[in-house]
Formats: sequence, C-alpha cells, structure tokens
Amino acid sequence: MKSFVYVHEDSDFTIYNIPFGVFKKEGHHGVCTRIGDTIVDLHQCTTTTIFEGIELPEGIFSQRYINSFISLGKKITREVRRRLQNGLVTGGFLDNDMFKESTIFISSDEVTMLLPVHIGDYTDFYSSREHATNVGIMFRDPANALLPNWLHLPVGYHGRASSIVVSDTPIHRPSGQTMPEEAEKPVFGPSRQLDFELEMGFIIGKETPMGQTISTDKAEEYILGLMLFNDWSARDIQKWEYVPLGPFLAKNFASTISPWIITLEALEPFRISGPQQEPDVLPYLRYEGSKNYDIHLSVDIITESGASKRVSTSNFKYMYWNMCQQLAHHTVNGCNVRVGDLMASGTISGTTPDAYGSMLEICWKGTKPVQMPDGTERKFILDGDTVVMRGWCEKDGVRIGFGPCDGKVVGEWK
Amino acid sequence: MKSFVYVHEDSDFTIYNIPFGVFKKEGHHGVCTRIGDTIVDLHQCTTTTIFEGIELPEGIFSQRYINSFISLGKKITREVRRRLQNGLVTGGFLDNDMFKESTIFISSDEVTMLLPVHIGDYTDFYSSREHATNVGIMFRDPANALLPNWLHLPVGYHGRASSIVVSDTPIHRPSGQTMPEEAEKPVFGPSRQLDFELEMGFIIGKETPMGQTISTDKAEEYILGLMLFNDWSARDIQKWEYVPLGPFLAKNFASTISPWIITLEALEPFRISGPQQEPDVLPYLRYEGSKNYDIHLSVDIITESGASKRVSTSNFKYMYWNMCQQLAHHTVNGCNVRVGDLMASGTISGTTPDAYGSMLEICWKGTKPVQMPDGTERKFILDGDTVVMRGWCEKDGVRIGFGPCDGKVVGEWK
Repeated sequence: MKSFVYVHEDSDFTIYNIPFGVFKKEGHHGVCTRIGDTIVDLHQCTTTTIFEGIELPEGIFSQRYINSFISLGKKITREVRRRLQNGLVTGGFLDNDMFKESTIFISSDEVTMLLPVHIGDYTDFYSSREHATNVGIMFRDPANALLPNWLHLPVGYHGRASSIVVSDTPIHRPSGQTMPEEAEKPVFGPSRQLDFELEMGFIIGKETPMGQTISTDKAEEYILGLMLFNDWSARDIQKWEYVPLGPFLAKNFASTISPWIITLEALEPFRISGPQQEPDVLPYLRYEGSKNYDIHLSVDIITESGASKRVSTSNFKYMYWNMCQQLAHHTVNGCNVRVGDLMASGTISGTTPDAYGSMLEICWKGTKPVQMPDGTERKFILDGDTVVMRGWCEKDGVRIGFGPCDGKVVGEWK
Repeated sequence: MKSFVYVHEDSDFTIYNIPFGVFKKEGHHGVCTRIGDTIVDLHQCTTTTIFEGIELPEGIFSQRYINSFISLGKKITREVRRRLQNGLVTGGFLDNDMFKESTIFISSDEVTMLLPVHIGDYTDFYSSREHATNVGIMFRDPANALLPNWLHLPVGYHGRASSIVVSDTPIHRPSGQTMPEEAEKPVFGPSRQLDFELEMGFIIGKETPMGQTISTDKAEEYILGLMLFNDWSARDIQKWEYVPLGPFLAKNFASTISPWIITLEALEPFRISGPQQEPDVLPYLRYEGSKNYDIHLSVDIITESGASKRVSTSNFKYMYWNMCQQLAHHTVNGCNVRVGDLMASGTISGTTPDAYGSMLEICWKGTKPVQMPDGTERKFILDGDTVVMRGWCEKDGVRIGFGPCDGKVVGEWK
C-alpha cells in the first residue's frame, strides 16, 4: 500500500498510520491527519466525495478539539480513517482538481500542531514492573522492592489535566518546597532535580455512565488511540510532599503529549503478548489474547549547543499491566469515564539500564551521571536541554510512528 | 434587611445569602438564586430592569452550567448578586407585573437542582490538623502522628472530577480489592467500610495562565464561593491501594456537593482568624488578616426507617491551612487554574470526638460504634442510610446557610 503523496522511507506518517490531530494555520484550526510531511485538512476534505455516506455533523472537523468527532463513536472514526487511507492511495476523491488539492493539503512546516483533545480527567498509572522495582530498590527495601499491592492491581492516581501541554511547548523549571538532607526545615526555590518520565497515554473515545464497569475484553472499544507522554517530575519536590497522599506539585507544573493520536487500528499489527502475571490476578483483571503493543521508544537529551545523546531505548511491550487491565480496574468501582479522558502508563522502563525511562533510574539517584558528547554531564535535566521522546513500530515492512514528543526546559518562570 | 418574599426564620436562604445554582424544571434549566423556599430564575429576570446596565451576554443565564457566567468576573457576579439582593427587598423591578412574577419565581418544590459547575480539575487538600492527627494516631505512630511535611505545607492531591455529583444523587456502594487482615491474597467485593468525609469545597472563578502564581493576599479574587462536600471514602479499598501514590478507587466512585455556591461576599461577615501556625511557614504561605470562616457544620445519619442521629458537629474555622494558603501553594510551581475548578478542604475535624468529620474517626477504626436511636449501631455507613451534611453561619441576627448536602447509600450497582 502506497500513497500518491510523497512519504520518506523513515517517516512516522506512512499510509499505514493515518493518525488524528488538530492543526492551526493563520488563525484557523481543524482536525487533520498527516501523510509524510503533508497535513490533510479534514474539514476541507468534506468538500469532496471522500466521506460520502458517513453521517458527519456540519463543522465537526473545524472545531478546536477532536472531542466531538471522537464522540461519534468508533464506527465513524474508523470509517473516516479507512476512507482517508484509501483516498490517499488512489487520490480519486480529488477529481484532479488542483484547487481542492491546494486547500486540502498543507505542508507540515506551515502549521502548528495544537493539543488535540480537551482532556477531562487525567489518570496516571504505575504499570512498569521494572520502574516500580527500581524505585523500590532506591528508596525503600531492595529485598522487598515491590510494595505488597503492586502485583495485584495496576496502581494509579489522579493527575492534573489543566497543565497538560502539546509537544514543543517550553517547559519551565518549577519552584517549590524541598527538604534538603540534614536540613532542619524546608527551603523554597527552583527544583534541582527536574526529570522526565517516558510514558504513553491513551485517549478515551467512548463514555460510560457511573456504575458501568468496563471488562478487559471490551476495554479496547473505549480506547481511541495512543500518544507519547512525558510526565515531567521534580524529584526533590516530590520526595518532600508525596507522603501520604501522592505526588502533587512535583508533577502538575506540566506534562507533555505528542500531537498525534495513533489509533488502535493502526497499532493492530503490532500486538504482542505481555509478561506472564504471577501471582494470578483477580478475575476482573484476567484477559485473553495479546493486549500489549510492540512500540519502540527512545529518549534523547539535546543540549542548548546541540549536543545530543540517546539516554533511553525502551519499549511499550514491557508493561506489566496492559491498558485493558488499567481500564477494567479504573471502572470496577463504578467510576465513569468521559470522551477525552487521558490515562497514562507510568514510566516505561526495560530490564537494562539503557532501557530505563527516567533520569532518576538512568543515573541511579545521581550516582551514575550521563556523559554528554559536549563533555558536560547530567544527573537530571538542566536549563536549555530539550528532551525528545520518540515512538515507532516496525514489522514486515510496515512502519508507523508517533511523531516526537519534545519539551525544552527554558528555566524558571519570570 | 428583609425580602418581600416570605423567608422562614430558620431558612438557609435569607436575604443575606443570595447564592448561585442551576435548576431544572420540565426540560429547561438555568442559573438561579434562592430566597426562602423560592427559586429565582435569573434568565427570566433579564426581562426586567433588575440587571440594567450590567453587560451580560445573551443567554448567559440559560446555560446548563454556571461557568460562562462566572467567567465574566467578580465585578459582574458581585453586581448581579447585589442587584438581586436589592431587588428582593424592594421588588421594584417587577413593576407589580403578575406575569413577570409568575415566570421569575418558582417554588423550590417544583425544581430539581443540578450540579451547578462544569468542574475542570478537582483537588482535595488535607488541611485539618485534628483529622490528620487522628489518622496518624490510628494508622501510624501516636507519638509522631503528623508526618514531617504536614506543618510546612497544605498537603493536597488530585481527585476525579467526572464522578462528582450533586446532593440527592443516590450513592452506590463500590466494589474493589481489599486485603483482609491475615489473608494471604486480596479479595474482591463490595466495600465493607464505606465512610463519609465532612468537607467544604471552593470554586475557582478566575483563570490563570501557566506560570502565574496566586499570592495569599490575592487568592480571594480567584474564589467565587463555597459548597459543602462529601468525599465518600471506602476505607478498606483505600488501605490496600493507597501506598505509594495516594487514594484512587477508594474515592473516585462518587463525591457529593451541595447545589448552592455561597459567595465569599455572603460569607464576609463570618471571617475569623485561623489557628496560630507554628512553626512559622515559608514566606509564600504567610498571610495577613482573617482568612478562616466561622461556618457551623453538622452530619446526620438517617436510617431507612427514619431514625436520625447527629454524629458530628464541626466548624470550618478549625482549618489549619486556609483557602488562600491552599491556592498559593497549588500555584507556586506555575500550575494554572481554570474557571470551575473545585478545591476541597479535606475532612474537617474539631478537637473533640463529637466534632470529628468521618466515621473512621468518630468510631475510632470501628472500636467505638455509634448507637442509633432505633437500636442498631454503625461503625461505617450501611445500605439504606442517608448522610446529611449541613452548614450555616449566624452572627448579630444575620443567618445564612448552605442547604443540605445529602446522599443516600442505595447498595451495590446492579
């Protein structure tokens, strides 16, 4: 399968991808997809035959957020994606009309990608066994690194939706209270331990009323797709504040998502089975089939002067608890979900140090600094550094990717 | 000051109150206030001279939520309230027009009160020293009941906005994982330790961009008003899940708010100074003046058969950390707030057992059951019980109240 639009062989946005996003150009915005380096304006597509027969409310693609479109349901979003995919192979819907082509296709250089979803509630899980184990070894008891509940349920907590920003948004170093070692009282100032967390997030595409649980075998019906997620964390603030009710200001100053929602349909060829779960989980958490996804992940740090270093090469397949289990757990008490809710995985670490998903783990609490190519070293993220997360799948000649999730740390708020 | 509308002497809704809410009647809804047992439809008021000269967008009072109205700013919301208060004294805006009167005024029996606010993010604090101390004594070390950070910062965490419901919404007993004492593995089933938490919540009336902190002396500009808040909690689920990232399914199955937003203007006469804070707090948490409010609070449990018992008589003035400190802390790292965000106080306990704000504390982990007038006893809340929270202020002949925050526990979801 090949598009008539040029797609570079390394592109994340092949004909097999067809993700959803929201672009802005010269004051107008709209829902779009992307093929190669070309943005496809879905609102302009409605002037062609491409979506003929699909029941689409007027103006559904010219809204600021994708929520109304998602709310139409998977039958519609899937069909829209399928038509786009076919259309971008054959080009038939354009009728060789140069004018249509000029309004529908926009060079990706000419647009700004916006936060695609109006996020209702945001939940963060803690579902990588390797990450939870590393944290347990560093801060608690190496012999009992995992807490007693960890193997029985996907631990999760609520996060702040208002401060989730899209890739390329500058990140400011937060200030807050910390308790320096051997100090008698806390001090206030900019965080000295600013970290990233390599995560993936998924978007809820179908709401439930309160009281309706979502079983593991139905969970995928409620998931529209995935994005990369950087759960920025201020470790020194976190350490002082988080007992007993969890992280708060250490996290809610900013989180970054990549701008493209990669649909479950696009990810279908990359299913893979997850780790064996032992001890056996309670019935509501059992599942059948392959519910993990083989998504290669990487994190680069790029300094102000352009020196770049890959500090992590991980994979979404390492997740101990899969998304279906997370959603089943989240709703088993009757908690409702809404279209646009975001649920993130927690830091995705692999088994080896080069696969760890945070500087906390990579540098092992600062004891093993990362050497940068310009001769400097990093224990945490410094002002001027850009953190670039990438995600991609590759199998049998099919490649799709997520587009980068970037954030440059620009120093404190002035 | 006295309204021409009849107001019973015990009414929460005196001429000094004039709260904001959203009602529903026969398929239409709108923003309203209440005087005595009479609902005042603000959209219908716009057909009179009462709001003359105030810049109000068309249809602002006929929306489902109060957010757009709040977004106009305090100058407008204050003036609307002031005009209503004057108008409800003189009645002049009615021009003795019986038709206008019949559309503007509705008996409170004829309406259903709706969740007034579309809640963006919801944050719960933990700001009662007595409550935090009680929990520390019960579950940790009586000699060091308060955790090291507690006296230095208002501990808070994020909660779930989607499952916040308005007073009178039936509450279902959540199911979930618990780890019974001496069990080897967790079990699944309905919570056996369903509790209430007596709290108050405040609504954000003015947004901030990311990076803008809110100082304690400006914080009140960002607070529209207060409501009662029942932070329903499943203690057995909480105990098993909450380490290390905080409560999750133990809380997000439901929280109940009272339907009326009592404005800071109405609460102005009831300011009172808060507890002395020792040790001294960091500069960003210091404040001047009286930032606590003298709001009497009570909790009754009413059984299915109608047996009623007051189990708590507390007061909002007990809060160690006031709302201005909470908001200053929440934003000191650059976290933004949005119109409609809800921030709750945490359980409000007084110094004596009859002033404790949760069954966990009142019955001291089940060791001191409450005797009900029908001969039954309670350690936690049983199916069929209704929990009724009330709040009111009284001083120099002026009385205002919050209207009840009710929730009946109707058993498990079917």
